[in-house]
Amino acid sequence: MITILRIGHRPFRDKRITTHCALVARAFLADEILIDTKDEKIEQNLEKIRQKFGGKFKIKTGINWKKAIREHKGIKIHLTMYGMKIDEAIEEIKDKKDDLLIIIGAEKVPPIVYEKADYNISVGNQPHSEVAALAIILDRITKQKWIDKKYDAEIQIHPSNKGKIVGAR
Amino acid sequence: MITILRIGHRPFRDKRITTHCALVARAFLADEILIDTKDEKIEQNLEKIRQKFGGKFKIKTGINWKKAIREHKGIKIHLTMYGMKIDEAIEEIKDKKDDLLIIIGAEKVPPIVYEKADYNISVGNQPHSEVAALAIILDRITKQKWIDKKYDAEIQIHPSNKGKIVGAR
Repeated sequence: MITILRIGHRPFRDKRITTHCALVARAFLADEILIDTKDEKIEQNLEKIRQKFGGKFKIKTGINWKKAIREHKGIKIHLTMYGMKIDEAIEEIKDKKDDLLIIIGAEKVPPIVYEKADYNISVGNQPHSEVAALAIILDRITKQKWIDKKYDAEIQIHPSNKGKIVGAR
Repeated sequence: MITILRIGHRPFRDKRITTHCALVARAFLADEILIDTKDEKIEQNLEKIRQKFGGKFKIKTGINWKKAIREHKGIKIHLTMYGMKIDEAIEEIKDKKDDLLIIIGAEKVPPIVYEKADYNISVGNQPHSEVAALAIILDRITKQKWIDKKYDAEIQIHPSNKGKIVGAR
């Protein structure tokens, strides 16, 4: 089970970035995303995508993030540009079967997150994007399984070099 | 040389997503990003990052994107959820030494982009994020070289599992 925890979400300012985080979480095979601030719009958007494209991805908003971190039984990962190198971190966690909690912040993240995380992991030590960082770590954790993932869904897209081929259930 | 071309950028609506695309382009070792709509704010933001964190990444906005595609001499890649599978595409292009142009759209992309691209490539056939798609394809194209990239820069971050270690030139 892979859970993403998004903290510091501000519905007006972060609407699109957090939506991208949630879509990436789903597309790269996480099981759910928890978002600290209540945001029904994002919940509805993701639920619409899930209904059309399939799967069991869950989204919950209005989450007490400190409690979510405290009560998580498995490995807690915090993505930050200050963290240890992703390849070394993946080497350490790859054979562990624990549930994973992957924490991504919006702006500045409180020190307690660094402290409570089992791993602070950097996806490169340059400033870029939590959307990209999440995709890269899920790519490594799932061992690229997202590439061939298919759902029994209303919309099914068939890969093609020259156009749009959309199937249906 | 790897150039990213961002089309359909709307400065108000897309400011943050396009900024994330530009930061990802830089962090994952593309050489420049061209953005169709003029946007001095994004140019300034990226230039500030470059001055602090180093490198030679270039950003240009207010670009005629049709001309940019037409005049590109090397391989033209368009990232789309409808495209061919990334692993198969990378297999085809990995030994070619041509300059790459990687096109990412904001909302709906005009059919001409699909037609003019040598490769329409999907980073998974699920809806997610151009920020994530760009990171994943650059990860594959650069063969993970971004992980160890260092700059002689004002700010240098040293990977660490438990805190922030920031060096300086």
